[in-house]
Amino acid sequence: MSNMEMDLERLAGLISDIQFTMLTTVSDDGSIHSRPMATQKLDEKNFDGTLWFFSKKTSHKNHCIEKDQHVNLAYANPSKQRYVSVSGRANIVEDRSKMQELWTPTLKAWFPEGLMDPEISLISVKIESAEIWDSPSSKMVQMVGM
Amino acid sequence: MSNMEMDLERLAGLISDIQFTMLTTVSDDGSIHSRPMATQKLDEKNFDGTLWFFSKKTSHKNHCIEKDQHVNLAYANPSKQRYVSVSGRANIVEDRSKMQELWTPTLKAWFPEGLMDPEISLISVKIESAEIWDSPSSKMVQMVGM
Ligand SMILES: Cc1cc2nc3c(=O)[nH]c(=O)nc-3n(C[C@H](O)[C@H](O)[C@H](O)COP(=O)(O)O)c2cc1C
Repeated sequence: MSNMEMDLERLAGLISDIQFTMLTTVSDDGSIHSRPMATQKLDEKNFDGTLWFFSKKTSHKNHCIEKDQHVNLAYANPSKQRYVSVSGRANIVEDRSKMQELWTPTLKAWFPEGLMDPEISLISVKIESAEIWDSPSSKMVQMVGM
Repeated sequence: MSNMEMDLERLAGLISDIQFTMLTTVSDDGSIHSRPMATQKLDEKNFDGTLWFFSKKTSHKNHCIEKDQHVNLAYANPSKQRYVSVSGRANIVEDRSKMQELWTPTLKAWFPEGLMDPEISLISVKIESAEIWDSPSSKMVQMVGM
């Protein structure tokens, strides 16, 4: 197993532990916004470095991503004092079979109509680098740098 | 009390509840990075809309802020399902008396030499807008827009 694969596997384990992330995007005027998002289930053993989210086509974040693909995902688990920063590039994806593969009933909180919602889309985030901190005094550990 | 003051007071209460935030900055190459930071104690009753952090002058975040003042602060309290996004403008501040006012012993984790550290600086973040979510299915509530 290469170092990169090991890193990705460890990263996948950390991320899977934290249900919601703060997805940060840059707006047209340069201001930076974040919002909580549910990371869709990933395959920890064969993680390929792409994270998936459901999002509305007309949302502010989709608009930001169409203009500037750079995003950050901040994962915080305060009770374990564990923090992860993922930097990557986002794409809007309208692949119906991928949506079917990833759909879970808990998504009904934001998409009551489910996959029938004409506004539904996926956001994929290809990880470019990641850092973790796993105790307050710990130095940052660079995990993935691609 | 104006609406703005009420908003700021509520925001101050939410932020005071969450010890560490993820501070997001934009790098020279457009990539976006975040790192956990300890928000310094604020006056909830008379909150003026500026948040304070201790940081090293030579750190990556200080470098980013010198080039682009826009930052985001993501506050996550997963156990209460509460999430806050703060957008603002950051400045590097080297005011010794402000440092003395804000210094607390817990900062020794990152600044073992305390205020004698020649690398020590403050980052001030002037809040420009803030949004909160206080349950997973809740709609975002715009709290402060300046
Ligand atoms: C829980 C936690 C809180 C932290 N608080 C601070 C802080 O208040 N100030 C600081 O300079 N670094 C703090 N750090 C370290 C930073 O996260 C980061 O590693 C360091 O500031 C360098 O960041 P940079 O290279 O992105 O500038 C903290 C780390 C953890 C895990």
